[in-house]
Amino acid sequence: MIGKPLAAIVSAGLSKFGRREGLYGRDLFAEAVKETYDRCPNLDPRRDIKALFIGQAIPESLEHQSHIGPLASNAAGLIPAPAVRIENACASAGFALRCGVLAVASGLADVALVGGVEKMTHRATPDVTEGLGTALDNWISQWGGLTFPGVFALMATAHMDRYGTREEHLAMIAVKNHYNGSLNPKAHMQRVITLEEAMESRVIAWPLRLYDCSLITDGASCAVLTRPELAKRFSDTPVYITGSGAACDTLETHEREDFTTSLATKTASQEAYRMAGVEPKDVDLAEVHDCFTIAELVTYEDLGFCGPGEGGRLIEEGQTKIDGAIPVNTSGGLKAKGHPVGATGVAQAYEIYLQLLGEAGRRQVSGAEIGLSHNFGGFAASCAVHVYERGG
Amino acid sequence: MIGKPLAAIVSAGLSKFGRREGLYGRDLFAEAVKETYDRCPNLDPRRDIKALFIGQAIPESLEHQSHIGPLASNAAGLIPAPAVRIENACASAGFALRCGVLAVASGLADVALVGGVEKMTHRATPDVTEGLGTALDNWISQWGGLTFPGVFALMATAHMDRYGTREEHLAMIAVKNHYNGSLNPKAHMQRVITLEEAMESRVIAWPLRLYDCSLITDGASCAVLTRPELAKRFSDTPVYITGSGAACDTLETHEREDFTTSLATKTASQEAYRMAGVEPKDVDLAEVHDCFTIAELVTYEDLGFCGPGEGGRLIEEGQTKIDGAIPVNTSGGLKAKGHPVGATGVAQAYEIYLQLLGEAGRRQVSGAEIGLSHNFGGFAASCAVHVYERGG
Repeated sequence: MIGKPLAAIVSAGLSKFGRREGLYGRDLFAEAVKETYDRCPNLDPRRDIKALFIGQAIPESLEHQSHIGPLASNAAGLIPAPAVRIENACASAGFALRCGVLAVASGLADVALVGGVEKMTHRATPDVTEGLGTALDNWISQWGGLTFPGVFALMATAHMDRYGTREEHLAMIAVKNHYNGSLNPKAHMQRVITLEEAMESRVIAWPLRLYDCSLITDGASCAVLTRPELAKRFSDTPVYITGSGAACDTLETHEREDFTTSLATKTASQEAYRMAGVEPKDVDLAEVHDCFTIAELVTYEDLGFCGPGEGGRLIEEGQTKIDGAIPVNTSGGLKAKGHPVGATGVAQAYEIYLQLLGEAGRRQVSGAEIGLSHNFGGFAASCAVHVYERGG
Repeated sequence: MIGKPLAAIVSAGLSKFGRREGLYGRDLFAEAVKETYDRCPNLDPRRDIKALFIGQAIPESLEHQSHIGPLASNAAGLIPAPAVRIENACASAGFALRCGVLAVASGLADVALVGGVEKMTHRATPDVTEGLGTALDNWISQWGGLTFPGVFALMATAHMDRYGTREEHLAMIAVKNHYNGSLNPKAHMQRVITLEEAMESRVIAWPLRLYDCSLITDGASCAVLTRPELAKRFSDTPVYITGSGAACDTLETHEREDFTTSLATKTASQEAYRMAGVEPKDVDLAEVHDCFTIAELVTYEDLGFCGPGEGGRLIEEGQTKIDGAIPVNTSGGLKAKGHPVGATGVAQAYEIYLQLLGEAGRRQVSGAEIGLSHNFGGFAASCAVHVYERGG
C-alpha cells in the first residue's frame, strides 16, 4: 500500500435509490444497514459497534423530525450504542464518514457504523427547495431569493465567462452520468439520454437545464469502519481509508471572491492527498459531488484532475468516462443515481468500496486500486474528501 | 491525577444567557468565542485550530437556517477550518464536546474548538414548543400530541407512584437552582424563589409547574480542546477530560419499559466513570440536565449519587446544594441559568472548567478537583457524560 491507513471499511450497504413510497427515513436506513450486516457475517453488531454517525440534512423540513441519531441506533439494532446526527447540508454523510474515521482512530471505539439518509419525494418540490435553501445564509442569500439552481447557475456563468466553458460541456457530463446510472441497478434514473435531449431540456436557471440538475430522491447508505489492525477480524477484503480531508468556506455567498473554484474542495483534497501520499494522477476513479453538472466540471479542476479552466476539455475528450483516464461518477453520480442529500457522502464511499473490490458489475473500472470521494454541502461551503486504497 | 487524560480544555467561554434581542445565533457564538480567545493568549486560532464541532438543535425551526458549521467557522475567524454541526436535540453540545475529544485523541487535529448555540426568544412559545417537539418520534409521540413538559410529567408521575416522591422534592430543586443562578452573573434568571412560590406556581403538565420547567433562552458556549501532552503550550492551568461516555435510548417513547430511570444516563455515566477511574463518591460537583426538575432528581439516582428512589431524600437533605456533599448545578442549571438547547452541553463544561480553576466566584465549591457533566437530548434518548479533573 502507498498510504498509511487511518481506518478500514469492512462492509457497506445502500438502499435502492428512487421514489420509495410509504417509507420513513428510518426504514430506508434499515435497508442499507441490512445489506451492510449481510455482507459481514463476522460482525456481531451489538457486541462490536460502539459508535454511530448518521447524516441527514433536512428531516425537520421533510419529516418533521430531528434527533435522528437514536432512531438510527434503534433501526440498526444497536441501542444503547451512542449515535450522533451530523448535519452539514449535502455533505452530512461525508462528514459522518470523517467522524467515524476520528472515532476509530481515537481508540475510543474499535468499530463505528456510519451512514446517511434522506426521505424527500413525498413532499412537494417547493417544500424541498425551501428546505434545501436553509443551507444558504438566511440574511442575504435566502432573503434575496437565491436557491441552489440559482447559485450554481452563477458558478456556471462565471466559469463560462472566464474560461469559455460551453453549455455542451455541461450536457456531456449529464449524458455520461446518465449512461453510468443505466449500469447501476440501484440508481434512481436508469435511462440513457442523448446530448440533444440534454441541450434541449427546459431551462431551470440559465445556463442550467433540467438535465444539469441532480434528482430529488429517497435513499440511505451505510458502512462499517474499524481500526486497520482489526480489519481482518471482520473481512478478508477490507478497503482502507488512507486520507481524510475536510474544509469549510463561507456560508455567506456574498463574501466569496471567486465563483469559478471551491476553496473548500481544494483545501480538503490537498489534505487528503497529503495524508494518503498520493497525487491526483494516482487516483483510479472518483465519485464527486455533481449536484449540478457545473459542480462536477469545476471539481475536476479543484481536485487537480486537470488545470484551472480545463474541465470542459476533460469531459470533451471523454477522460472521465468509465474507460477514460480518470473515471468520475461511475455510479451515475448525484445526477442519475440520485441525491438523497444526507445519504450522498457514504453512498459515494459505497461505490468506491464496490469498485475497489471488483464488485461493480457492468460499470466496473478494471484494475482500480485507489479511489477518491468528494462530497460538498451547500454552495461548496463545506467539503469532505476521502482517499481509499484496496488492501494488498 | 486519578484518570488518564483523553483531552485537555485550555480555554472556554460563554455568552451572557437571556433574552438577547437583535442578534442571530452566530452573533451569540462569536461572543462565546471571544471570551475563549481572550482567556488564551497563547492560542493562535487560525494557526492552531484544525477542527470545529458545534451543536445547534433547531435552527431550521427558529432561524430558517441549517448548515451552521461554516457559519460557526466564519464567526470564529477560522475559514477554511472544517466545522461539523452536531444535532442530538438538547444534547447537541454534549456530543459536540465528545466529537472534539475524538478529534484530538485521533491525532488528526491537535486542537479542536467545540461549542453550541441556540437563538430562541424571538419566536413565539408555540413555535419553540413545536420545534423542540421534533425531537420526539414523529409517528406516535408527536402525532399523539406529546410535548416535552408532557413526557417529563409522565416521568414524574411514574417516579411519585413507585417511590413516593413528592411535589415538594421537585420544588426544592427549583429553589436550589434559582439560588445558584442568583450567584451567576451570566444566568438568565437571577432571582431567588421560595418553596411556596414554586409550589403555588401554575401547572404546566401536572405535577410539573412553571418553576419545574427550564427556560427558553438565547445563548452560546465554547471551549478549546487539545491533546493532553500539548496542553501546557496553551495554558498553565488546563482542565483534563478523563472520561467521555455516551449512549442512546429509543427515541420511540412507546418502546420504553421504565419511565423512572434513564438507560442512556446509566450507560453513558458508567462508561465515563470507568474511563476516568472514579466512582460517583469521588465526584466533587456535577452539572446535570435539569430541563425539568424531575430530570435532575432522576439523574441523581442514575449517576449513582444515591440509590434508586432516593433522589427526593437527597434534595431534602440539602446534599446537592453548593455546600452539600455533592453540589449539583452550581451554575443555576438549565432551570435558572437557562437552556439555549444546542449550547447547553458545553455550557456545563464551562461551569466545571471555572469551578476546577477556582474561578466560580460566589458560587465556588471549595477544593473541587473532580467534576462531571451530564447532558441529555429529547426524552433522555441520547446522553453524553464527561468527567473532568484539575491538572496537578
